[in-house]
Amino acid sequence: MSFNAFGEMFRVATWGESHGPAIGAVVDGCPPGVPLDAVMLQPWLDRRRPGQSRHTSQRREPDTVEILSGVFEGRTTGTPVHLLIRNRDARSKDYSEIADRFRPGHADITYWQKYGIRDYRGGGRSSARETASRVAAGGVARAVIATLAPDVAIRGYMVRMGPHAADPGRFDDDEIDNNPFWTPDAGVVEIWAEYLDRLRKSGNSTGAVIEVVARNVPAGLGAPVYRKLDADLAAAMMSINAVKGVEIGAGMAAAGLTGTENSDEIRMGTEGPEFLTNRAGGILGGISTGQDIVCRFAVKPTSSILTPRRTITRSGDDTEIVTRGRHDPCVGIRAAPVGEAMMACVLADHLLLHRGQVGDGGGRIG
Amino acid sequence: MSFNAFGEMFRVATWGESHGPAIGAVVDGCPPGVPLDAVMLQPWLDRRRPGQSRHTSQRREPDTVEILSGVFEGRTTGTPVHLLIRNRDARSKDYSEIADRFRPGHADITYWQKYGIRDYRGGGRSSARETASRVAAGGVARAVIATLAPDVAIRGYMVRMGPHAADPGRFDDDEIDNNPFWTPDAGVVEIWAEYLDRLRKSGNSTGAVIEVVARNVPAGLGAPVYRKLDADLAAAMMSINAVKGVEIGAGMAAAGLTGTENSDEIRMGTEGPEFLTNRAGGILGGISTGQDIVCRFAVKPTSSILTPRRTITRSGDDTEIVTRGRHDPCVGIRAAPVGEAMMACVLADHLLLHRGQVGDGGGRIG
Amino acid sequence: MSFNAFGEMFRVATWGESHGPAIGAVVDGCPPGVPLDAVMLQPWLDRRRPGQSRHTSQRREPDTVEILSGVFEGRTTGTPVHLLIRNRDARSKDYSEIADRFRPGHADITYWQKYGIRDYRGGGRSSARETASRVAAGGVARAVIATLAPDVAIRGYMVRMGPHAADPGRFDDDEIDNNPFWTPDAGVVEIWAEYLDRLRKSGNSTGAVIEVVARNVPAGLGAPVYRKLDADLAAAMMSINAVKGVEIGAGMAAAGLTGTENSDEIRMGTEGPEFLTNRAGGILGGISTGQDIVCRFAVKPTSSILTPRRTITRSGDDTEIVTRGRHDPCVGIRAAPVGEAMMACVLADHLLLHRGQVGDGGGRIG
Amino acid sequence: MSFNAFGEMFRVATWGESHGPAIGAVVDGCPPGVPLDAVMLQPWLDRRRPGQSRHTSQRREPDTVEILSGVFEGRTTGTPVHLLIRNRDARSKDYSEIADRFRPGHADITYWQKYGIRDYRGGGRSSARETASRVAAGGVARAVIATLAPDVAIRGYMVRMGPHAADPGRFDDDEIDNNPFWTPDAGVVEIWAEYLDRLRKSGNSTGAVIEVVARNVPAGLGAPVYRKLDADLAAAMMSINAVKGVEIGAGMAAAGLTGTENSDEIRMGTEGPEFLTNRAGGILGGISTGQDIVCRFAVKPTSSILTPRRTITRSGDDTEIVTRGRHDPCVGIRAAPVGEAMMACVLADHLLLHRGQVGDGGGRIG
Repeated sequence: MSFNAFGEMFRVATWGESHGPAIGAVVDGCPPGVPLDAVMLQPWLDRRRPGQSRHTSQRREPDTVEILSGVFEGRTTGTPVHLLIRNRDARSKDYSEIADRFRPGHADITYWQKYGIRDYRGGGRSSARETASRVAAGGVARAVIATLAPDVAIRGYMVRMGPHAADPGRFDDDEIDNNPFWTPDAGVVEIWAEYLDRLRKSGNSTGAVIEVVARNVPAGLGAPVYRKLDADLAAAMMSINAVKGVEIGAGMAAAGLTGTENSDEIRMGTEGPEFLTNRAGGILGGISTGQDIVCRFAVKPTSSILTPRRTITRSGDDTEIVTRGRHDPCVGIRAAPVGEAMMACVLADHLLLHRGQVGDGGGRIG
Repeated sequence: MSFNAFGEMFRVATWGESHGPAIGAVVDGCPPGVPLDAVMLQPWLDRRRPGQSRHTSQRREPDTVEILSGVFEGRTTGTPVHLLIRNRDARSKDYSEIADRFRPGHADITYWQKYGIRDYRGGGRSSARETASRVAAGGVARAVIATLAPDVAIRGYMVRMGPHAADPGRFDDDEIDNNPFWTPDAGVVEIWAEYLDRLRKSGNSTGAVIEVVARNVPAGLGAPVYRKLDADLAAAMMSINAVKGVEIGAGMAAAGLTGTENSDEIRMGTEGPEFLTNRAGGILGGISTGQDIVCRFAVKPTSSILTPRRTITRSGDDTEIVTRGRHDPCVGIRAAPVGEAMMACVLADHLLLHRGQVGDGGGRIG
Repeated sequence: MSFNAFGEMFRVATWGESHGPAIGAVVDGCPPGVPLDAVMLQPWLDRRRPGQSRHTSQRREPDTVEILSGVFEGRTTGTPVHLLIRNRDARSKDYSEIADRFRPGHADITYWQKYGIRDYRGGGRSSARETASRVAAGGVARAVIATLAPDVAIRGYMVRMGPHAADPGRFDDDEIDNNPFWTPDAGVVEIWAEYLDRLRKSGNSTGAVIEVVARNVPAGLGAPVYRKLDADLAAAMMSINAVKGVEIGAGMAAAGLTGTENSDEIRMGTEGPEFLTNRAGGILGGISTGQDIVCRFAVKPTSSILTPRRTITRSGDDTEIVTRGRHDPCVGIRAAPVGEAMMACVLADHLLLHRGQVGDGGGRIG
Repeated sequence: MSFNAFGEMFRVATWGESHGPAIGAVVDGCPPGVPLDAVMLQPWLDRRRPGQSRHTSQRREPDTVEILSGVFEGRTTGTPVHLLIRNRDARSKDYSEIADRFRPGHADITYWQKYGIRDYRGGGRSSARETASRVAAGGVARAVIATLAPDVAIRGYMVRMGPHAADPGRFDDDEIDNNPFWTPDAGVVEIWAEYLDRLRKSGNSTGAVIEVVARNVPAGLGAPVYRKLDADLAAAMMSINAVKGVEIGAGMAAAGLTGTENSDEIRMGTEGPEFLTNRAGGILGGISTGQDIVCRFAVKPTSSILTPRRTITRSGDDTEIVTRGRHDPCVGIRAAPVGEAMMACVLADHLLLHRGQVGDGGGRIG
């Protein structure tokens, strides 16, 4: 058991706060012989890094990841991989006025109620900064997946910002890396940019929906009950800061469907079973079908806003608060790389779990 | 690690298939001295039991729970509580024609792909029958909660069936036990009944949304990162059969809100902090605030329908299938007691985890 | 986490007390397709069963094991295997006079101190009866091992009783099943029988040492640090009732050796590396070498004896106690099958863990 | 699950190899509000540090521990405490000639057989260097214990070196810190020093026995079956490098005792139950009695010796090896602080587990 770790065979434990000297992750259970070095991990961190456009926090962190253990001559050894990321630009002074007041929508009040002690200089473990560790660990997971199931491709992107949804009809995979929102819909970029500028200027913020898809995942990953692949994905995505809902395939909309609309019919294709639709999001009974794994999650609007909010002090006095500092007006923008990382970690874990329990077994069709 | 268990200190492991002699659960980590006997558990099982109205499966199971260990003279001893429920009415013959064909929307194909062996007489571990074990374990969790935090009240109910949503304005707690759908809205009962009759007659089925609320949960339960209270709830609810989406508080709709709309402002009340709204669903940074814990999940429509569906056989031939047998046209109806049970188990676990780590500590306000 | 389970991928959770209706085990993580039925398990239980000679408890339990789940048409399905053993001959009346007095050497006093409640009718979870569940689970582990590493052979036997040690020079594998002590030394049987008769008549008891050896275990099982194969074996054996010491290979005697005496030199044999000695007990750095895994453990003398012992009551009064009932004068006799079972469970777990992390990999020599 | 972690609520995960840039530990589950800083940890590391006398390795490591997270203004926050220790004096060149040959008694061959890759510059995770992380984590555990059970005192010392045992009759607690062997028997120091000098000069080494005692441990810690306090201690001690045997109380010698000799009789004392002897080593049925917890373990002789040893190469050729480098002739000397650290971690874990499950409960006597 561990409050700060997840995964079973591919196990990720993170540590560190936003205003300490560094943050990091220990990845345990990594198979030996996997090609890995820090250079391979850096691109994933660069995608998540703040300060890359006017739409994200102006905190300037190089987010350089160092591998301190578990790799020898460019390959994993099977021992723990320790990933270290130093904090460079933590300006503690920005936070001085919130030491005694609880920011609405933040964990300030619950940390205090739970622990009776709180590092008031920032969000501590609840800071979005912690997600850099996840992204680094996700890079290790990708390296493992590349060895075990090399066709798997994981893609996260934004499909909704506030009231404005992307149009699935304009989905273009190549567009995702072309805009500051990681959206596959070029047509929505300008709308979102204007919406976000307006919110930022008015001291407000907005929520978003991120979709993460994993293609070419082998059939058979997961388990029937409490380690369902979708249950693990739900926990993984809900553990990301500010996430309030998680969907697999049809998601909440499945409630509105009939059985004939929802159950994905099957035909035999040239390379195996083919499902005529994918309402299931690639998972049946907690086990992958070989279809795309489709997962979506909602990120609430950033709670750190310049609009004054009513709150109380630690001594129980009513007051108001304005959260200055350098904050993302739409924290969802940086959640796409984090969602990808969590998907990668969950899949790496289930690849190893499946190999452990079943080996090369499993049933053939046709 | 365990594919068939969940929880850390209050740990539930279930076993058994729909067509074996029995199913059951082992509850480990239960505090000693908690009043408990089988009679206390039976009402929860009776609520989930099939065959109680024309809207649920006509399988007739008494679902009598026996406690085989862990209780002495009406109190728990601190050792594992074993809960046994015998299967009485498993008609294996009903399933003979599906031995070699995969029912769309079911785990038949993924079990085969994963394990290479499948008990074709039913859903095995993926049968809704497994949820009886959860409900029994949830009864034990309620007994624990009654000792540790006696004011907690857990309530699950249906808020949507197919296209028809309950009206929150007509919410009446007393109504929930008065109708076969566990809905708090008397006004929607007739609409749902007619809708469901129509679907059943046409060999179809429908999805639903269940909401589970826990009131008077102490502030401070949960943890900041991977054992967030909401992450554990998400995994717990997503692990229920047929669930495709999980929401906390504002849920997916949080994506459409602005920061000023979403962050719940705080005022000091007579008995502690009071939040002016509850978009957060009672959880901030993964830790309970003392507000109502609000969780919703979508249940997909029953995949076992009388309308013929295209599928394939194990040998890879295209075919069709009609799923006879005794199935719920809206499996969501019986999911309300299951959702309550999962909420109870998660809360019992976090009550013990919090006591273990923090004891009587925590910070005071005012 | 679980107080009553062990193993990671091959995970065994037991439940039940000596004076309840039944005891049992849930085995989770079992690979699918493993041939298994209750008939295969029964011989292992029969070996552990009390009442087979005048040297063991006269409690008469048939110890018939039932498999309630996880097996279909003679093969495991990959879902939890539930093993049930009914208690038939629990005579509660034998224990009435000890309800309020703590038996020295027993867990009576610590149960009370820990839990504040105690089933005074017997040892509860600390009764040797619990080990029947282990033996049943060990039978499942053997079936798994037979599939994954069919040459593995596990053998447990007694090498010491009180002051009388077996002579390694007379080791005869065939003798083990020929005598009531499971000893490979025919020459010591008569000595032990006389010693034990004398002790029993005088209302006394004796300790013993059991050795468990696993042959033909593949090299590479285990891990370098906290999941060392020997660390897991140490925990497994120490978890058996009345065990006070565990040794691997040279064991405690390694303290008396020099480096040249202790380190096993290596030569290349026709089928791989050969070690010239086996002080390491088949484990180097926590990982199996391919040599025999050699484990020994000491079982303390039965604490339930007819000689009056000084003790106290729950209300703190000094008193004396004589433990009547049906007890083994040398509980070590029945520990050999239990030690074998624990070895089997640990090896099955590590076979799966190794396959999960490393697959078919590993380094070749020569 | 985790190959490189132990403990449940107080959970320690270590990472790092002897020849990488650093090693470290992440301590998760630490209660909040515990006074802690690096200065408090340093004395424990200094005790384990090599190069302090002519009897230990001449590798010169300052072993300065840094706390990178989980502490704010001198108190723990309840989030992960990350402990970092840099490697300063790793001379990789010393190891160049063993890249392709397996050192007898070392994990070289099993690492290769398991992983197919090996950092040949040292023992990797199996180096005694890893134990510095344990000692640092043990310091955190001591801080936790000081808060929860301030009277607990943990003491580790050497009681045997090769053929020479310390005399229990000369036990003097104050002597332990006065000699380079951490022995309580001043009379044996000179004998051991001469013995060790002779071995070192002849290119040989010796084993040892370490005893670790914890005084004033509250009654009630542990659990009846697989999380027995002694089972956890056995795993913890056996996980230390080179340990081949673990004993609790009477240990292996319990096999030679009769029931009347072994079972500790009880009388009522002024402050609670008093046991007239302590054969049980403070643990009955896996649960602490309130007596001294007494644990011993055997450390095998250092395998890195200057005497040529027969071995094979990776390509399967017979050869010889002499292990140069800077090695302890009796690695047991530095094992006393490590054994203390493991005892502290296990006790901290069980204090939290007990509080979680039972709270302030438990039964009173008298």
